[in-house]
Formats: sequence, C-alpha cells, structure tokens
Amino acid sequence: MPHPIIFDTDPGVDDAQAIAIALRHPDIELLGMTTTYGNVDVETATHNALLLAELAGREIPVAQGAAAPMVKPRHPAPAHIHGANGLGNIELPAVRGRPDPRSAAQFIVDTVNARPGEVTLMAVGPVGNLAAALQLDPAIIDKVKQVVIMGGSVREGGNVTPVAEANMFNDPDAAARVLTAGWPLTLVGLDVTHRCVLTPAHMARIEAGQGALGEVLAGSYAFYRDFYYEFLGIDGCCPHDSCALAWLLRPELFITSRGHLTVAMSGDAEGQTIFAPEGRAFIEARWSRTPLVDVCLGVDGKAVSDWIADTLA
Amino acid sequence: MPHPIIFDTDPGVDDAQAIAIALRHPDIELLGMTTTYGNVDVETATHNALLLAELAGREIPVAQGAAAPMVKPRHPAPAHIHGANGLGNIELPAVRGRPDPRSAAQFIVDTVNARPGEVTLMAVGPVGNLAAALQLDPAIIDKVKQVVIMGGSVREGGNVTPVAEANMFNDPDAAARVLTAGWPLTLVGLDVTHRCVLTPAHMARIEAGQGALGEVLAGSYAFYRDFYYEFLGIDGCCPHDSCALAWLLRPELFITSRGHLTVAMSGDAEGQTIFAPEGRAFIEARWSRTPLVDVCLGVDGKAVSDWIADTLA
Repeated sequence: MPHPIIFDTDPGVDDAQAIAIALRHPDIELLGMTTTYGNVDVETATHNALLLAELAGREIPVAQGAAAPMVKPRHPAPAHIHGANGLGNIELPAVRGRPDPRSAAQFIVDTVNARPGEVTLMAVGPVGNLAAALQLDPAIIDKVKQVVIMGGSVREGGNVTPVAEANMFNDPDAAARVLTAGWPLTLVGLDVTHRCVLTPAHMARIEAGQGALGEVLAGSYAFYRDFYYEFLGIDGCCPHDSCALAWLLRPELFITSRGHLTVAMSGDAEGQTIFAPEGRAFIEARWSRTPLVDVCLGVDGKAVSDWIADTLA
Repeated sequence: MPHPIIFDTDPGVDDAQAIAIALRHPDIELLGMTTTYGNVDVETATHNALLLAELAGREIPVAQGAAAPMVKPRHPAPAHIHGANGLGNIELPAVRGRPDPRSAAQFIVDTVNARPGEVTLMAVGPVGNLAAALQLDPAIIDKVKQVVIMGGSVREGGNVTPVAEANMFNDPDAAARVLTAGWPLTLVGLDVTHRCVLTPAHMARIEAGQGALGEVLAGSYAFYRDFYYEFLGIDGCCPHDSCALAWLLRPELFITSRGHLTVAMSGDAEGQTIFAPEGRAFIEARWSRTPLVDVCLGVDGKAVSDWIADTLA
C-alpha cells in the first residue's frame, strides 16, 4: 500500500528533487502539494510545484499557503543558494495548470478529514501551513497518520545561525506549535541531512533517467552545487528534503531517538530545536513537558544518497 | 617559568583534584584561590579550598566570593553529585587557616594589578567572581595574561539542560559578561571534558601518591563515581576542572577553534554557549559581533587523563 502524503514545500532545488521522488516513487500516493515562502517567495514556490508535476506528466493539486512567518518579519529569500527562481536561475517552461483555490491550510484540513488515519503530512520548508491548519481544525492532530518534518538540528549546529536550521529559524513560532502539537511526529534535521551528500555522479544518473524533469533537476543542481563548494568546500549537495522521504520509505537507514522538543522562539538561540531524550533528567522539568516525538540523530548517508539516485535513475 | 594563576573554584570533587594539580605541579605558581557557590555553597567552597591547601602543606590565600548568581535565583547545590560537604560526604580534618579578608573580586583585581601581564585567571565554577572583578576594575581586561574557563558546550549538548553546561547555567548573566569581555580567553567545555575519563586505576595511583590529600581525593572520587555510573553508565569520572589545567600546560593535546561566543541569558536555551566560528557567515551578523576567543572542540582524552594521574602519582 503506498503512503498517501501531502507534501508541504518551498521549491527550492533540493525540494524539487524530493518532489520528483514523491511524483515517481510507487510507494508514494501524492495527494497534493502545499506551498510556502522559504527558499523562494510563495508565488514562485507555487509556480515551481505546478511545473514539476507537469514535467512529470502528473496532475497534482497545488494549494498556496504562507507568504510570510506567523509573527516575525520575513528574511529575504536566499537567492544565492537556490537562484531567484528557486531552480538555479535556469530557463523554465511555461506552466499550464492553476493552483487549487483553497489555502494550503484548508487543503490540509480537508484532505486529512477525508481520509482519517491515513495521511502523512510531510513538511520540508517553514512550517507555517501546518500551524495554520492546526488553527483551523485542531482535531486533525488525532486524524493524521503522522507528521514528518525536515528541519531542526540537535547536535549538528545550525546552518543559518550557529544553532538554528533555516526552516525552524524562518518561523520559530509556527515550529513551536507544530513540533509540540502532540501528533505522531518525526524530525529529520541537519544531524542526518548533513551526513548525506549527493555527488555529481548521482546527479548524472538522475539527469539521464528523468527526461524533461531531469533537465530541470540537473540544471538547478549545478547552481546549488556552486554554493556548497564555495561555502562548505564539498563537491556535492546535501539532499535535505529528500531525506524526509528516505526516512518514510527506508527507515532502517536511520537511527532515531525519542524525546521532547522545545523550540526557542526568541533571543540568540531563536529557532533552535532543543531535544531532551525521554527519561533523561535535567535540572528543571521544563524541557521534558512537551509531547514525545522521534528525532533522527544518525543515518547511513551513503545508502540514502544511493537510494535517491536509484529512485530517480 | 611557572604560570602565575588565580584559581576560581567551587570544590567540588573534580575541583579538588584540579586544586591538587595546581598545588603540586612545578609549572604552576598558585597565587590564590577564590571561591564561589556552585557545586556547594560558598562557605563550604572556602572551607574545602583552605583544607586542600593545608593537606598539601601549602599556605595559599583563599578569598571568598559569590554566594549566589548575579541576577537569577540560585538552584540548590547538587549534593547528589558532590556530597553535601562537596567532597563526597567523607569525614574531613579540621581547617586551621582563615580566608583572606578581601572579597574574591577584590583579590583578583589586586593580584592582577600587582603583576600586570602575568596572571592567568582560571575559573572552574560559575563565573560571578570574574564578573564582579570586571565591575570593580574593568581595566584588568588589558592586564591579565589570559582567562581560562571550564564551562560551556558547543556541540556536545548540556549536562544540566539539553543545551547548557552547569557553570554557565548557574549564572548566565555573569557568563555573558565574562565570555565577551574582550580579554584573551579560552573555553574548556563539555566538548572536551566529556572525552576524558579518569578510571579507578588512575585514581588508585593518585591515592597512593598524595598522602593525606590523596585520601580525600580518592574518598570523594568514590562518591562522584557512583553518580557517573548511575546516570551516565560509565565506570569513571570526567575530570572537568583538571582539563582546564591540562589545556594550560599541555595545549598540544587539544584542538581549539577561534570565534565568537554568545551566551543565552534567558528562555529555554538559558546558559547555552553559542559559538560562531571566525569568518563563518550567518543569516544575521549578531552572533559574530562579540570579541574573538578560543574554544576547545577536540582533545586526546586518554592522554589528558593519563597526564592527570601522572601529575598526581
């Protein structure tokens, strides 16, 4: 039985690759995509989500959502990483389709309620759409099958601040709501995504295997790769968002730990995901009061990267 | 030439061992000890500092300092780790000497001014005395030789909260002042002290080598060891405070990184030491505005533990 999922996304180069997996993998039933600002503005995210589905020859509902964080002002999109168009500034074909008329949050609520107990929510950008869905209908907490979040960092340090990962930093208030809502939740963060490197050889296989979609994935990857080389000194990219799908379909490649998450909402640790392992005592109880969740702390990085390339080759 | 140092301390089992090293090592000129609450209350800390010097047959000035944090309320001392008397609840001989009449802060100011450019301040407890000294005479910033702090954690996580080390959590306001004062500073935190384990075999050598002082060190170690076994599942203890002396005398055993420290002063990350490596760009500049310091991130833990035992055997 394939996993019915809603993919909440801000494509984004690594998002595009994850979307390709969600579109192609036989074990995924992609119910829809919901879009958010993040790597790009939300209109661009919606455009790119529609485009990627069309390039794969699929008709998938795309519902547009958050244009900005819940509370704090929005940082400009990181055009030096993903390109101004989110796909490495390559020339893109025209989009034929139109977004779903509903907001992302309403789409999530409707879809979860239509198939109670079945739907996996997977979010790979700032999680404002999930927070907005909880605001519309908190009862979905007990109706989703599970929630998988690409974001956060426990021991790895941050990528946009010394301690915070970009998706959590982009909307720490939404993250605090979503990560402590009490639904079955797994966090796939930098502790594992930084262990996975998609090499040029992987990408050549993907380009060869995906036709017009592969051209867009490979073209945008080339731009993204320059960022990794310049800033991190590695020849290859961390496939952050695809790791969330890898966790869903190949959980045996990951080591997870169960415990409590707290998101710092302000101050110099803003956006940090603070993890208290289950049963570990600290000087005060405050870090251990949030609902139990699973956090990925270890991974077979090479196996995940190979799985991504195998899936799309 | 030995290093003239002031040792700021809250003994405490691992403090006692570090004090023994400072009293015995030929490359250390121990100018005085200043005491603070932390592992114990400040009166007990003063008593223990005096006692340890007397057991070593040395007359060392001991100046009493902070009884509580600068701003926040004080947590009770962790009697389950160090014992109510700070030395594993073993029976202790009477103390003959008296503390210096000056406050710890005044002792620091006077001593640094008497030997400008020469004195190393080494603090292995909450750093309120150093903050108080800066309040009395900020000019010592340019007169100390260097400041070495046992405390903090960058990648290792915390020991009293998921992200904060005990000394920093005990007085984050003082820590923020001291770690960003602009004096030459090295942080020796959990990233290295958790890599060092002093085994029962090490301790047997220390007990045999230190006479009456060795009996106190070994007796208190036995109590401290129970804590490590029960809570961390290891047979042995992390010699946190001795690691600061190891860094001073055997810096080649450590890997340090230069960068900027920010101390979270409130919220759920309270007491966390946030480290921005020099030259690393983040989404905002705020983490990179504090003065450059050195932070220990790696260590040859076995070599440090052996050095401690060799020094005291």
